[in-house]
Amino acid sequence: MIGHGFMGAAHSQGWRVAPRFFDLPLAPEMDVVVGRNAAAVAAAAEKWGWRESATDWREVIARDDIDVVDIVTPGDTHAEIAIAALEAGKHVLCEKPLANTVDEAQAMTDAASRAAARGVRSMVGFTYRRVPAATFARDLVAAGRLGEIRQVRAEYLQDWLMDADAPLTWRLQKDRAGSGALGDIGAHAVDLVEYITGLKVETVSGILETIVNERPLMGEGVGLSGTALEERGPVTVDDLALFTGRLSSGALASFEATRFRTGRKNALRIEIAGSLGAVSFDLERMNELEFYDATLPGTELGFRRILVTEHDHPYLAPWWPTGHMLGYEHGFSHQVVDFVNAIAEGSQPEPSFDDGLHIQRVLAAVERSSTAGSAWTPTDS
Amino acid sequence: MIGHGFMGAAHSQGWRVAPRFFDLPLAPEMDVVVGRNAAAVAAAAEKWGWRESATDWREVIARDDIDVVDIVTPGDTHAEIAIAALEAGKHVLCEKPLANTVDEAQAMTDAASRAAARGVRSMVGFTYRRVPAATFARDLVAAGRLGEIRQVRAEYLQDWLMDADAPLTWRLQKDRAGSGALGDIGAHAVDLVEYITGLKVETVSGILETIVNERPLMGEGVGLSGTALEERGPVTVDDLALFTGRLSSGALASFEATRFRTGRKNALRIEIAGSLGAVSFDLERMNELEFYDATLPGTELGFRRILVTEHDHPYLAPWWPTGHMLGYEHGFSHQVVDFVNAIAEGSQPEPSFDDGLHIQRVLAAVERSSTAGSAWTPTDS
Amino acid sequence: MIGHGFMGAAHSQGWRVAPRFFDLPLAPEMDVVVGRNAAAVAAAAEKWGWRESATDWREVIARDDIDVVDIVTPGDTHAEIAIAALEAGKHVLCEKPLANTVDEAQAMTDAASRAAARGVRSMVGFTYRRVPAATFARDLVAAGRLGEIRQVRAEYLQDWLMDADAPLTWRLQKDRAGSGALGDIGAHAVDLVEYITGLKVETVSGILETIVNERPLMGEGVGLSGTALEERGPVTVDDLALFTGRLSSGALASFEATRFRTGRKNALRIEIAGSLGAVSFDLERMNELEFYDATLPGTELGFRRILVTEHDHPYLAPWWPTGHMLGYEHGFSHQVVDFVNAIAEGSQPEPSFDDGLHIQRVLAAVERSSTAGSAWTPTDS
Amino acid sequence: MIGHGFMGAAHSQGWRVAPRFFDLPLAPEMDVVVGRNAAAVAAAAEKWGWRESATDWREVIARDDIDVVDIVTPGDTHAEIAIAALEAGKHVLCEKPLANTVDEAQAMTDAASRAAARGVRSMVGFTYRRVPAATFARDLVAAGRLGEIRQVRAEYLQDWLMDADAPLTWRLQKDRAGSGALGDIGAHAVDLVEYITGLKVETVSGILETIVNERPLMGEGVGLSGTALEERGPVTVDDLALFTGRLSSGALASFEATRFRTGRKNALRIEIAGSLGAVSFDLERMNELEFYDATLPGTELGFRRILVTEHDHPYLAPWWPTGHMLGYEHGFSHQVVDFVNAIAEGSQPEPSFDDGLHIQRVLAAVERSSTAGSAWTPTDS
Repeated sequence: MIGHGFMGAAHSQGWRVAPRFFDLPLAPEMDVVVGRNAAAVAAAAEKWGWRESATDWREVIARDDIDVVDIVTPGDTHAEIAIAALEAGKHVLCEKPLANTVDEAQAMTDAASRAAARGVRSMVGFTYRRVPAATFARDLVAAGRLGEIRQVRAEYLQDWLMDADAPLTWRLQKDRAGSGALGDIGAHAVDLVEYITGLKVETVSGILETIVNERPLMGEGVGLSGTALEERGPVTVDDLALFTGRLSSGALASFEATRFRTGRKNALRIEIAGSLGAVSFDLERMNELEFYDATLPGTELGFRRILVTEHDHPYLAPWWPTGHMLGYEHGFSHQVVDFVNAIAEGSQPEPSFDDGLHIQRVLAAVERSSTAGSAWTPTDS
Repeated sequence: MIGHGFMGAAHSQGWRVAPRFFDLPLAPEMDVVVGRNAAAVAAAAEKWGWRESATDWREVIARDDIDVVDIVTPGDTHAEIAIAALEAGKHVLCEKPLANTVDEAQAMTDAASRAAARGVRSMVGFTYRRVPAATFARDLVAAGRLGEIRQVRAEYLQDWLMDADAPLTWRLQKDRAGSGALGDIGAHAVDLVEYITGLKVETVSGILETIVNERPLMGEGVGLSGTALEERGPVTVDDLALFTGRLSSGALASFEATRFRTGRKNALRIEIAGSLGAVSFDLERMNELEFYDATLPGTELGFRRILVTEHDHPYLAPWWPTGHMLGYEHGFSHQVVDFVNAIAEGSQPEPSFDDGLHIQRVLAAVERSSTAGSAWTPTDS
Repeated sequence: MIGHGFMGAAHSQGWRVAPRFFDLPLAPEMDVVVGRNAAAVAAAAEKWGWRESATDWREVIARDDIDVVDIVTPGDTHAEIAIAALEAGKHVLCEKPLANTVDEAQAMTDAASRAAARGVRSMVGFTYRRVPAATFARDLVAAGRLGEIRQVRAEYLQDWLMDADAPLTWRLQKDRAGSGALGDIGAHAVDLVEYITGLKVETVSGILETIVNERPLMGEGVGLSGTALEERGPVTVDDLALFTGRLSSGALASFEATRFRTGRKNALRIEIAGSLGAVSFDLERMNELEFYDATLPGTELGFRRILVTEHDHPYLAPWWPTGHMLGYEHGFSHQVVDFVNAIAEGSQPEPSFDDGLHIQRVLAAVERSSTAGSAWTPTDS
Repeated sequence: MIGHGFMGAAHSQGWRVAPRFFDLPLAPEMDVVVGRNAAAVAAAAEKWGWRESATDWREVIARDDIDVVDIVTPGDTHAEIAIAALEAGKHVLCEKPLANTVDEAQAMTDAASRAAARGVRSMVGFTYRRVPAATFARDLVAAGRLGEIRQVRAEYLQDWLMDADAPLTWRLQKDRAGSGALGDIGAHAVDLVEYITGLKVETVSGILETIVNERPLMGEGVGLSGTALEERGPVTVDDLALFTGRLSSGALASFEATRFRTGRKNALRIEIAGSLGAVSFDLERMNELEFYDATLPGTELGFRRILVTEHDHPYLAPWWPTGHMLGYEHGFSHQVVDFVNAIAEGSQPEPSFDDGLHIQRVLAAVERSSTAGSAWTPTDS
């Protein structure tokens, strides 16, 4: 595993736990974790249970005893590492976003395509697909239970930037983070809509907005918990992204990604309205799916709160009895399960780098549309 | 109409509005409102649109141009007025509770029975039966959609006595009010359970509890908004009633009525669990019914939030379009509709005085059980 | 009152009920209802309690004993009637939308301005402002409890056009209805956002969409309940409107109005996020307001479900005890209260025709933006 | 670890994961799992990551390299194993219920008391105390935020016995399971009420009910998923327990434990009403706590939905960012943390065997009360 931030903890938990609950065709071993700071990465290895730590990812990739590379570094380093790993014949799991630019994502996808020809697998980490309620929503759509999709609403609402004096972390700097709410959380909304509906966003019109334009520079510390200096610097990414997309079926989907929606902590919400039914999902109640079956008698219609914790629901069988909740990190176990199964079966895991590239193109199109006065902009040009 | 407190306002609204929305076979006219204080009752007549006011209910009952008597006085006066009215050949609508004692209620029921033989109708005012969501719950049970009823939970939660220094209103004095939370709101819970399930409470075990035993005597003012004096007096009714009842089918129902459930304002909640399904109702969301249909596929089970605002739902057709809410007083219009229809048809309106007597017996049995250390006590002895 | 459709019933209920609960400085009398079909309007007068009916609104407006004209006809007739009534010195309450075009609305506003100089009052009927929870949201914002408004989401979701074979009512024809979801329900969302925030929508970017383009022509019947013929005709209004507006403070607000959001019956939802707090409202739970007070301690933050049924809440004092719900038509009583009070006080009632004109301009700007590829379009050009 | 059923999986996950997220003063090692069937227990060791498996728990307890014994066997074996382990000087974590009878529980508590004098620790596994929202509720009460506790409602609702033809598992046989819903889930409700309020249940009145009295005997299979034979046998435990308890402060608490509450899967719900506030918890939404602060202004009162996922909430700091959910098994990690910390500090972990014994006495008192016609029965006689 390359990288050891918050995502490193989640991925480590996925690798550690998945084999304890699921019957996997291969037995993953947690060999090496890589980071730039030798002491920090050694501590991470100890804490999360990796056998070794290392500071040079190139050396690790060159090792024969390494079969899989899991990339959880910031987005600006994904391309170089992933391409090198694929060329070295390692299966690659790359955290989202695939990259910070379309060009990088394209290069990665090309590398993935070449690697696939040699039986080397690659996957991008949109884990929310593996929240059972989201997977079950996709199953309902795929089974035709919603009929023709008429319209879609997707929003990812957080409020952790509410404080105008919170420091200027790397996530607020375009050269590091690529984009703001759009790429960090809007990407999840786009992926989840496409995954559940089976449709693609083909053109977009939207606007990116920075609500607080200047923040104190960051002193010591990392991530969200750094200290603030007196000097201030410009926020160069979006705090809020509002956009509308036309899906490949012709239906419209509206999107919102924001870090300023006061009181909403992690509200990734998707509602899909079809001619025969609707589903509504909220990550803040991730074990529930609301399903509206419009084919029932008129006096009995209503959104049904399904606890997606039955043994027959996706991914649920090896876990706990009915009504016992799963949490955030279970998605990472499910990701490991799907990735390992694909490697063993020799099939293409999903979402592929190609899917990741497409998401990147949607994000880039939103940026272009915003710059062009919200003009409708194709995603795949 | 005899009486003109808060219930007088609600009943007046029922008489005024019902004919404007429903096609009634008879045209009710709002003739006389009666009260002890001439000035106050005159003001009430003016405000609520009654043609005349009067201070002597006996004179009014004696008038030939009066066909219907609507009793909204405190419970200790119901028996005398209702019996006189019935004997005078007037149809009687009597607000709940039917009376403050079983003996009074029995006498009223006897009078009602004699009157019915002469075509004179009587009804007791448990209006929550006429909240469309509650009526619809009854319809689902009656249609067999819940299967065999296995267990029932009913609670009526308020918190308006939370303040230990709130004054000692008449509602906290046993000689005036009969009982406390038990009779005032517990009665609604019992009636609604019996109405929706079609079953009767046959034996009970329970406890009545006074949580704040002394309160400031009441100075000026009426009802809940009087001023508090320095002197204190004893609270002689229950603040909280907890009891279990065995229904005529053998199933158990548990009840709670309280004015001390911090934060709950008017939460009359009924949940009925059957072998094929369940319903859940909360008066604080009175336009909704939660319905669980256990016959659906296992992965799709869940409580369905039905907005009971469709034209095909009970009482709904003459009102507003789908999704437009009804409020508290609509039940009083529905009560007028059912009462007037029964008079015109010559049928027995429900709930009858007999039903009201039965509720009174349930309440009395709970009191006896509480006194007897929660011993199981039959309701109809 | 001119007109006697569904809105006529609601307005009649407002005029009938308001004086029974509120102390009004003037005593409104329900004199004449006007309609084109003599038999139908006579029946409406009888049913809703108007003294007379008439078929020629000009004659009624000319009568000396008429002081107030309440217009509840379709939008294409508002301008002519309202201007004539104002010129005849009658106070005018005009149902929303003010008119079908900006030009008509402008002419009405000019007439209102001339009339106001002579002490004649005019108001447009956006009644959802008078839902107590919405009014209370405005009060919280006005008191600074939300701090600086950062972003706004407003949606009005219905699904009554889900059935692709539902007939082509007048509401789906542009020449009659002006627009579709945009003007019918989107107008409410815009008005409510402006009312609660005190801000104006200054520029917009959006798209209008017709999801089902052809429907069966309508045979007999009216409104939503007509029968469908075999022949089909084009739907000429929008089924779905998605737009973003920049408010006068610079904040962005995103809007959605749709009649195709499967399972949502009357979900007018407004969420306003500020630097100190947020409010969230849903008309399907119209007695509740969710309030997030970000100034509370960090471990205690959360959306608080306030039952807006306390005597100290807006409009609530004359109604029922705490926890007893209001319904759809109560807003119409509150509208009558505010209108009559303004007439008595000689003040300008709100929302004024000027406010109505502004809303019309916002709607027109959305249409122009949609035609222009979602280009940002000023609302007051 | 002795035992390897469903609870074994949960405990194993606790031991595996806790050290990866929390800084523990001691490093637990997963040495031996014990079971009667050699092949099955070997598979469990392999699957859950224990170094060895064994079939004789006495041998394992005799080993010097074993410091801690975690008991997850059925309740009828707890006493023998726990007493032996304590006498061998091993710290003991014993899954709830402490035992199947009060006598056994008393013997275990005596052994624990003797062991504690030698520095050997013991704890009983009521893990729901360690759901952060429940712990936070306790903190609010302890900080006086609820004022004086006035009344309590606790219910644990499941429906997995709804099907009257489900087979007669060991959980429905009194000699194996001790009791039914009462001991299995009612025990959790009692413990959580006592934990959050800091009060004890001193007397009880209640009834136990078996709703389906006969079920098919079980063929092959285990637990809930066995096959049903044609022959039927008697259900000898309760399906439903309804009881009221008087707490040590004098306040009343009402309890319900049921496996027949159609549609409720794992709804452990606690609501505590005090003079200054209230809290409401539902295990089906385990990351949320509803808090009502009655000291806020009257128009702003309401239950506040707190997402208990902030870093300052109990147990939360080492986990994920705000708004990322925890699941069922996290409580088992928290249990390990508290147990290991108590061992390292030499303090008494909670809940102690003494607490477990008290719960057992409450359950026994409910049984006696049920037999005695719901007579009020002391819990500690």
